[in-house]
Amino acid sequence: MTPYRMLVQRFDRHYLLRSSADVLEWDAQAMMPEGGGELRAAQLGTLRLLAHEAIATPDMAERLADAEAEASPRVDEWERANLAAMRRAWVHTAAVPSDLVEAHARAASGCELAWRTARRDDDFATLLPHLEHVVDLTRRVGQAKASVMGLSVYDALADEHEPGAREAILTPLFARLERELPPLVDAIVAEQARAPRAPELVGPYPVARQAALGRRLAGRMGFDFTRGRLDVSAHPFCGGAAEDVRMTTRYDERSFLPSILGVIHETGHALYEMGLPRAWVRQPVGRAAGMGLHESQSLLMEMQAARSPEFLGYLSGVAAEELGVDASVLSKEALVRNALCVERTLIRVDADEATYPLHVIVRFKLERALLSGDLPVGDLPGAFRDEMERVVGIRPPTDRDGCLQDVHWPSGAFGYFPSYTIGAIAAAQLFAAALSAHPELPSELAHGELGSLRAFARENVHQHGSRFDTNAILERATGRGLDVDALLAHLRRRYLRA
Amino acid sequence: MTPYRMLVQRFDRHYLLRSSADVLEWDAQAMMPEGGGELRAAQLGTLRLLAHEAIATPDMAERLADAEAEASPRVDEWERANLAAMRRAWVHTAAVPSDLVEAHARAASGCELAWRTARRDDDFATLLPHLEHVVDLTRRVGQAKASVMGLSVYDALADEHEPGAREAILTPLFARLERELPPLVDAIVAEQARAPRAPELVGPYPVARQAALGRRLAGRMGFDFTRGRLDVSAHPFCGGAAEDVRMTTRYDERSFLPSILGVIHETGHALYEMGLPRAWVRQPVGRAAGMGLHESQSLLMEMQAARSPEFLGYLSGVAAEELGVDASVLSKEALVRNALCVERTLIRVDADEATYPLHVIVRFKLERALLSGDLPVGDLPGAFRDEMERVVGIRPPTDRDGCLQDVHWPSGAFGYFPSYTIGAIAAAQLFAAALSAHPELPSELAHGELGSLRAFARENVHQHGSRFDTNAILERATGRGLDVDALLAHLRRRYLRA
Repeated sequence: MTPYRMLVQRFDRHYLLRSSADVLEWDAQAMMPEGGGELRAAQLGTLRLLAHEAIATPDMAERLADAEAEASPRVDEWERANLAAMRRAWVHTAAVPSDLVEAHARAASGCELAWRTARRDDDFATLLPHLEHVVDLTRRVGQAKASVMGLSVYDALADEHEPGAREAILTPLFARLERELPPLVDAIVAEQARAPRAPELVGPYPVARQAALGRRLAGRMGFDFTRGRLDVSAHPFCGGAAEDVRMTTRYDERSFLPSILGVIHETGHALYEMGLPRAWVRQPVGRAAGMGLHESQSLLMEMQAARSPEFLGYLSGVAAEELGVDASVLSKEALVRNALCVERTLIRVDADEATYPLHVIVRFKLERALLSGDLPVGDLPGAFRDEMERVVGIRPPTDRDGCLQDVHWPSGAFGYFPSYTIGAIAAAQLFAAALSAHPELPSELAHGELGSLRAFARENVHQHGSRFDTNAILERATGRGLDVDALLAHLRRRYLRA
Repeated sequence: MTPYRMLVQRFDRHYLLRSSADVLEWDAQAMMPEGGGELRAAQLGTLRLLAHEAIATPDMAERLADAEAEASPRVDEWERANLAAMRRAWVHTAAVPSDLVEAHARAASGCELAWRTARRDDDFATLLPHLEHVVDLTRRVGQAKASVMGLSVYDALADEHEPGAREAILTPLFARLERELPPLVDAIVAEQARAPRAPELVGPYPVARQAALGRRLAGRMGFDFTRGRLDVSAHPFCGGAAEDVRMTTRYDERSFLPSILGVIHETGHALYEMGLPRAWVRQPVGRAAGMGLHESQSLLMEMQAARSPEFLGYLSGVAAEELGVDASVLSKEALVRNALCVERTLIRVDADEATYPLHVIVRFKLERALLSGDLPVGDLPGAFRDEMERVVGIRPPTDRDGCLQDVHWPSGAFGYFPSYTIGAIAAAQLFAAALSAHPELPSELAHGELGSLRAFARENVHQHGSRFDTNAILERATGRGLDVDALLAHLRRRYLRA
């Protein structure tokens, strides 16, 4: 067996273990009875550890070097890219000593538990020692990676979520958003204040009917139900594996827009997974290029396409039909007002697309300060309020609605938040490029047709897997790397008709 | 770490991998979209292999010997029993060279595929080379185990499914059943012919209502829905793990008795799993003592309890209520006639409790002859017809309804069939013992009360795990080892009022 083939086999085993754990994680969220939690945690711990061990054996450095030496005359571009992706995966896996990996995982899991209670009780003090421990260990993880990768601590951590994400690239993009979004939000709020308040889309909308509507829309978008499922969980997500995608949503009888837009969002993620290159799906190069690009695929479908007035016009018809409601109640106008309401609010996950990047900017700044030590963890609550007031323009009255609202830091995920805004930026760029290539797109959306948008995404994003990084994929697809112009133009056009 | 502690850790990992695979197998049957099959097969292959490797390392013989040496002053009876169960699991795992294990698994999986087509097309000839290969490899597996265990080939294979099952024990039991059941069946058939034919329980019975009835009965039987689920699959089974039991049934709108009795059957299996000793559930001693004893728990609930006229009287009321049917249609009399109809038929899985052991006897004889080579695989179809005619009293007109009806042999499971009759025998013994201890049982059954029966099973069977073997568990619970008296008496009493 050649050195490269041997690596392929190891990464295949890594994938089989990881994807087994991913299906079991979906099961834990969507199916498992509560009494199964303890066993499941132990099962997942074992599977993740074995997946880690499959590609972190002591001889990997040598094996990779052998395969790379052998690879110089290699003609297959995918194999070359796969070898590079293997090295990347291995560096992230092996750079950190396993006792530090374990200590970090244990601290994060304890901190996440403490966070649940702390958030419920609005009690940062009980979280503090846990979070200090997590920040400390995360910093050490970042340092270990940084020294191997020749990056800063923050970049080394962010690179795990979005390969190629760098503070130096993000800082000017975010600075421009921080400068230009607040006046834009002011203008939108003023504009929307001139119209009457959005009518309430009073239900009840039976769950079974919402589910039927969601399945219909997902199917129409191209979700392949022979290779995936749609179920229910407390926190919607898209999991499973590329060959067997498990997405979830949640239902509330009193309103249907959140569940339906949630399904469309997760379907965007699912289409990315389903569109990955089949032949490479178990290898590193066959994976999605990064979490930011992944988010761009959900936002492309949800924010760019489904929240367009054209698509909302179509939705008004099918929703009335599937939900058994009079079409006049679910008029296009009513859906537009509800789906496109801009407002400065406290909670990131509920924020509209115009204010959302400001929430991310707050976190981007604070997580770097936490890691560098410039911001002592004990000072986080005050700093969070100050930054929210300064950047988003609204001051959280409590920590529950402030620095305790997100699970990311307690669970040890630093450098992840930028992915959301990378996704929003990339989605706007990709939609604009799709529109140039397919000027008929708006009229297709008005008929609920997402075929050419999906084909564009498949051709320009999905089928590349990790052959290129996010920036390179955007350059090839749109002529530019990450660039906030398209997002700002999109917001002006949609909300100010400018 | 002591040698024993190290073993505990290895078997813990073994359990976590095996139970992960078990949940993924449940998912494959109950949830997975068809397109996920290829990935799932690879995932399960990897998990089963790693589970095997966890307890088949080259140093295990030495580790076990160390722990056993250390164990002599060990006071804890459970630890001693666990060590014995570890050795047993290890012998079955390590006795067979891993290339033979792999060849057997591959041949069985190919043969099972070929069997699907062969059964559909009633075409034994295409199955023949596959089945010859499986029989040959199974024989070699049996020989490998036999030489290590000091048993015959058949006993070594049967021991894997039911520890302690031996041809020498089963042969006289089965000989008596073969002698006494046919005249008994004749008498029952004659008796039932005197009454009018069972009325058809005409539906339709909506699936949702059947499911509600099934859940209600399972809950009433003590199935803990915080530690398990009830779903749908093509072939009902009880899987998952003791801490998180996943059972399934299937529904047919035209009839409800099969699905409901199926739920009760699987609930019997589930109660065994849920009643295993919690502290030991991840260790060999914490598992069910064998497949035959497992089957006794499902048959105790289904055959002994739920098909009793008393319980069927209760069922008539709740079924009418849950299914929204007039109570007169689902009278006790109608249910009794439908649930207790005895007839010589072709298909084992559809057979009634009086003729079922005869189907098993046919297979018990033929599988030993196949393994010994006395019966060439090519002669199986004719031998199967002859034996069915001789023992069951009905001659299959086709191989589809003859030797092609069961998946066991094509899938490489030899020595499994006796478990069904071991289960039936043990269930009759246990029910009789429960009745002696709780003479109020029949009147409880008439009220749908299974509390004392479940408590009896938990105390006498479930809580022991694998601390004793099946025979010893029966001796403790009923005063006798496996003994057909109780089964024969039960049949005479139920069907002949004798």
